[in-house]
Amino acid sequence: MSNRPLILISNDDGVQAQGIRELTRMMCRLGDVIVVAPDGPRSAASCCISPLTTIIIRLLKQEDGLTVYQCSGTPTDCVKLALDGLLTRKPDLMVSGINHGDNASISIHYSGTVGAALEACMKQVPAIAFSLKTKSQQCNFLPFEELIIQTARYALENGLPQDVLLNVNFPEVEALKGTKVCRMSRGRWMKEMEKEKEGAYHLTGYFQNLEPDAEDTDYWALEHGYAAITPIQLDMTASAWLEELKGSFVVRG
Amino acid sequence: MSNRPLILISNDDGVQAQGIRELTRMMCRLGDVIVVAPDGPRSAASCCISPLTTIIIRLLKQEDGLTVYQCSGTPTDCVKLALDGLLTRKPDLMVSGINHGDNASISIHYSGTVGAALEACMKQVPAIAFSLKTKSQQCNFLPFEELIIQTARYALENGLPQDVLLNVNFPEVEALKGTKVCRMSRGRWMKEMEKEKEGAYHLTGYFQNLEPDAEDTDYWALEHGYAAITPIQLDMTASAWLEELKGSFVVRG
Repeated sequence: MSNRPLILISNDDGVQAQGIRELTRMMCRLGDVIVVAPDGPRSAASCCISPLTTIIIRLLKQEDGLTVYQCSGTPTDCVKLALDGLLTRKPDLMVSGINHGDNASISIHYSGTVGAALEACMKQVPAIAFSLKTKSQQCNFLPFEELIIQTARYALENGLPQDVLLNVNFPEVEALKGTKVCRMSRGRWMKEMEKEKEGAYHLTGYFQNLEPDAEDTDYWALEHGYAAITPIQLDMTASAWLEELKGSFVVRG
Repeated sequence: MSNRPLILISNDDGVQAQGIRELTRMMCRLGDVIVVAPDGPRSAASCCISPLTTIIIRLLKQEDGLTVYQCSGTPTDCVKLALDGLLTRKPDLMVSGINHGDNASISIHYSGTVGAALEACMKQVPAIAFSLKTKSQQCNFLPFEELIIQTARYALENGLPQDVLLNVNFPEVEALKGTKVCRMSRGRWMKEMEKEKEGAYHLTGYFQNLEPDAEDTDYWALEHGYAAITPIQLDMTASAWLEELKGSFVVRG
């Protein structure tokens, strides 16, 4: 068995996407790599899983230090399958992406890229989601390589806090201005349904940042040429509101 | 136009499920109701959306104070469609469920019931997700009716804090011991993949509560006969860890 770290990779754009191929190349600098990724695009898969269908995997590549599987399921299925079905030991790190399209602000709730990383985090594997704010399927990921390596190495050497993962977004630039550690921006999607004909619609719309001047947010960083690193947590409890709410529901049901 | 409150309902078990039919009957006590729900089961749909397909809706019922649509999309698609395509005014309340199966602890990340409520919350509509800890498709929801009415009335009269929704879970009992306002329990799903044959798996597994003695958690409430009301928030930033992380990434990228 290799003494190198074991790194699991998945994404939501599918195993053939440029982003995951670049991320795989980068991670091979740091350890032994296993890729388990969907067999086609699963954008906006969130943490969706497939309880009702058989999940099919196929080995695409097995060479020294690199194993690649494609999977018929969602990104979350891929991570569950890797951790519960394929691997004989827990990975030292899980990375997801590099997504073609940002996953900042509330878009993390829809993101299969973040969903895959959340799943690894739930299983106590340090996890990082990487996304590039682009609309293109062919991108230049090289300007981000050293930060990706540095972030991955940080997680490998230090681990991450319990139930916390890193969500990293890049602006589409030739050279980053720098890196901001930041919180999720408030935002919303607007005009999301376009009518095709009576009874038939398709998704569309645009994102509106509700805090365009907040320099401590992920969206501000992206719009100003910085990489955004946001720690996100599994616990969604609105803790600040617990006590107030307790006063309202002193009831016997 | 009616002066009664307008209440939007969705779920992830599909428009024909007993839980949404019961919830619809209950909400008709409080206001005019529009149901937009999937045309079949979408369990574990999370916040998944359908950007690549046409979404088809069909009007099933239109009578005084009650309109029912079925939709080919996910629970989140249903809510987007209702708010952006079908309704001419913003609802006063959105309720989701009643789900057949609990959505406590980390299971909220997979839940289409919670996903639908998150979507309404993102659109500034007060939202509540209701779930019953059961494995049955035929359940007795009557023991929870008064708490459901009370919770919905609370949200109608007071609203909910910005970017916060309520996640309500019931134990399968004939009479609730009471109601607990509580946080998400830490937990994990175990042994989730069962091999059918070489290269073919299906999801299975069981939930393990990692804090069985923590009386302030949703899972403790459920296991002791109480309804669990957990406020959850859109912002997943791990705020407690922001400052520590800032020291680690003072880099130029």
